[in-house]
Amino acid sequence: MVEKRKPITVGEAVERVMALVKEGTTEQVHIEQAFGRTLAADIIATHPVPPFDRSPYDGFAIRAEDSKGATRENPVTFSVTETIGAGFVSSKKVEAFQAARIMTGAKLPDECDAVVMFELTSEETVNGKAKMTIKRAFQPGDNVSFKGEDTEEGTVLVEKGTVITPGVTAVLATFGYEFVEVARKPVIGVFATGTELLDVNEELQPGKIRNSNAYMTAAQITRSGAEVKILGKLEDDLESCYHSIHDALSDVDMLITTGGVSVGDFDLLPAVYERLGAEVLFNKIAMRPGSVTTAAHLDGKLLFGLSGNPSACYVGFELLVRPVVRFLQFDSKPHLLKVKATLAEDFTKPNPFTRFVRSKLFYEEAGLLAAPNGFNKSNAVTSLAGTDCLITLPGGTRGYTQGDQVDVLLLEASEGSKWPW
Amino acid sequence: MVEKRKPITVGEAVERVMALVKEGTTEQVHIEQAFGRTLAADIIATHPVPPFDRSPYDGFAIRAEDSKGATRENPVTFSVTETIGAGFVSSKKVEAFQAARIMTGAKLPDECDAVVMFELTSEETVNGKAKMTIKRAFQPGDNVSFKGEDTEEGTVLVEKGTVITPGVTAVLATFGYEFVEVARKPVIGVFATGTELLDVNEELQPGKIRNSNAYMTAAQITRSGAEVKILGKLEDDLESCYHSIHDALSDVDMLITTGGVSVGDFDLLPAVYERLGAEVLFNKIAMRPGSVTTAAHLDGKLLFGLSGNPSACYVGFELLVRPVVRFLQFDSKPHLLKVKATLAEDFTKPNPFTRFVRSKLFYEEAGLLAAPNGFNKSNAVTSLAGTDCLITLPGGTRGYTQGDQVDVLLLEASEGSKWPW
Repeated sequence: MVEKRKPITVGEAVERVMALVKEGTTEQVHIEQAFGRTLAADIIATHPVPPFDRSPYDGFAIRAEDSKGATRENPVTFSVTETIGAGFVSSKKVEAFQAARIMTGAKLPDECDAVVMFELTSEETVNGKAKMTIKRAFQPGDNVSFKGEDTEEGTVLVEKGTVITPGVTAVLATFGYEFVEVARKPVIGVFATGTELLDVNEELQPGKIRNSNAYMTAAQITRSGAEVKILGKLEDDLESCYHSIHDALSDVDMLITTGGVSVGDFDLLPAVYERLGAEVLFNKIAMRPGSVTTAAHLDGKLLFGLSGNPSACYVGFELLVRPVVRFLQFDSKPHLLKVKATLAEDFTKPNPFTRFVRSKLFYEEAGLLAAPNGFNKSNAVTSLAGTDCLITLPGGTRGYTQGDQVDVLLLEASEGSKWPW
Repeated sequence: MVEKRKPITVGEAVERVMALVKEGTTEQVHIEQAFGRTLAADIIATHPVPPFDRSPYDGFAIRAEDSKGATRENPVTFSVTETIGAGFVSSKKVEAFQAARIMTGAKLPDECDAVVMFELTSEETVNGKAKMTIKRAFQPGDNVSFKGEDTEEGTVLVEKGTVITPGVTAVLATFGYEFVEVARKPVIGVFATGTELLDVNEELQPGKIRNSNAYMTAAQITRSGAEVKILGKLEDDLESCYHSIHDALSDVDMLITTGGVSVGDFDLLPAVYERLGAEVLFNKIAMRPGSVTTAAHLDGKLLFGLSGNPSACYVGFELLVRPVVRFLQFDSKPHLLKVKATLAEDFTKPNPFTRFVRSKLFYEEAGLLAAPNGFNKSNAVTSLAGTDCLITLPGGTRGYTQGDQVDVLLLEASEGSKWPW
């Protein structure tokens, strides 16, 4: 009655899955749609920054040599040739003891090598001619933003695999990337299973609970950077189950089933996998929650059989599916970011297997604090609401006490870890 | 020539803006579209969890009293009445020395008060009748998940103002929230200004640069939880500028202009504000970058004049506009999350005004480390790409040295601070 399964370690499970993931594919999106996507190619500086010598202030562009000897007692007066607005270029040559009014960001006239801020000048009009006087000398280069001083042409500015933030968007726009090469989002199908499950819009019935896993997993898929296809509920019957999964596979890049089929977890899945000709990578992991997590693959497509227990389903997704999605997005650190934090309260349970505790991270003055989220029974769906990290307690350890340093996996960090185990 | 403006503190600027923000409005979305939105009403437990006494394992439901005295030497045998799958309820009464096979998640028969895991039983069939034998006693309540032990009916599970994560989605689904009351996203219009600006798809020209602020700000708007409307470039002319802004205001909830109009920053904006009848809240803030940041309001709508300098524009948005959006999303902590971190390198510049340094946060074993992002000239757009936090250095301070504790504002945290100044 009790199927014998050989548990493997979490690290081994992750490795078996990751070994099968192929290179991601790419597509182009308009820069207005690029936020949140992942770069599929480096951003290269297509020109130097600044692209020309420019004024960082509103002021006067001068030839520094003309200011030599200017003092409070011996001010030097310049004739003003013209005003150069940002976006304009000088139309007149600046000769000895001439100056051009220049606005922030405007290109310096070729003859000039310094800028004097308005505040350090006095202006007057003499016989209808604009004059400007200064009372100190300037050196060549004073108040000039030099061409290329920020970035030289050809520099790699942002690497492939980086999530497109507002800052990355600014770089894309600056260098003319109207269309951006991004990683295509893999499409992940989600089947819910379990006779006990009602849909979210059904009234509660004796013995039944509503299906929360499909919607939760859908949100996790979205958060990971993939596209979700909610496929409904699998029928409680091998034949129909086989056909549903078989047909769905042609529409998706990966498939997730959450929960058991019929009585007991996964009763039908092994049979479906066999009939499909899928190779099972593992069907038990030495971890809590989520030990009855299965992965299989068929024709290059991964099939994940996540637990019907909400917390186990949640953890299984983040540990096994998320890194696949991030890898397909060219992310060189596809795993959850692992950091050290101080345990906020005693956690007395022993940990025969690696344990992932739903927790919340606090940024205290003394450092990071991780607090287990209330009632930590594995089916406490409500404790998932406040979860933004998973405390990781290695298998074979006894309880932990408040103040211990523990590993914590951050669930909402946009950057990850290379290999967290 | 140099307009005199009276700078106010950052805190005062934020307060003046926040004082004008009204209560947010709400809308309903389907649970499949709820991820990333913000709750506009508390989630209440519409039933206890578990909704009935249930089995947390595959096993046998028994009456504990029948197991009294069971030992290795004196095992007790039970007749098996039926199998209760998850989602089913018992159809037969469980009498003395009877047991029901029960699957994980299934409702316990009313007569039973304990569950024995399969692993602790031996099964056999005698004369066609299923029997089960145990070798130890069980107490009432052993291996039972009691009705309501996770959550009592009526409990507030997740508060209004919380961003909908996958965990929150699980709670919504569990309690039948097919449609979710969320905060309506305010619509924010963005005008780019500046004669020097080319659009992202234009070839570089002498003296000109591409407009990065509009796309960057659009991404910031999206990240903050609002909807963006890119309105193009304002003409370099008061009349047309006035009409563009006037007309746009009826389509948006807030309006952002980035960059100067014509020569010098904001030359036309004060005139436009005056003609519109908008009240200017401030036009200078004692901070770097972003000192020339303007805010005004008209008929309950906020107008932000952000700097044309990319970094100043970026900082101005995060300090002033983001909290407005988050407040409209019922977020009780609408400001950027402020944490303490160790400065990773010397920052020698004095800080006559509050300074916000584009930086990157590292989670080190010893704690959080904040590293200024390379070349920190205020127009270095490339340094924005790797920015995920802003080191905040108070005005009136001299330089800081590596190892100093500094305040850091996190840009990507889903939770914020109540009031960071």
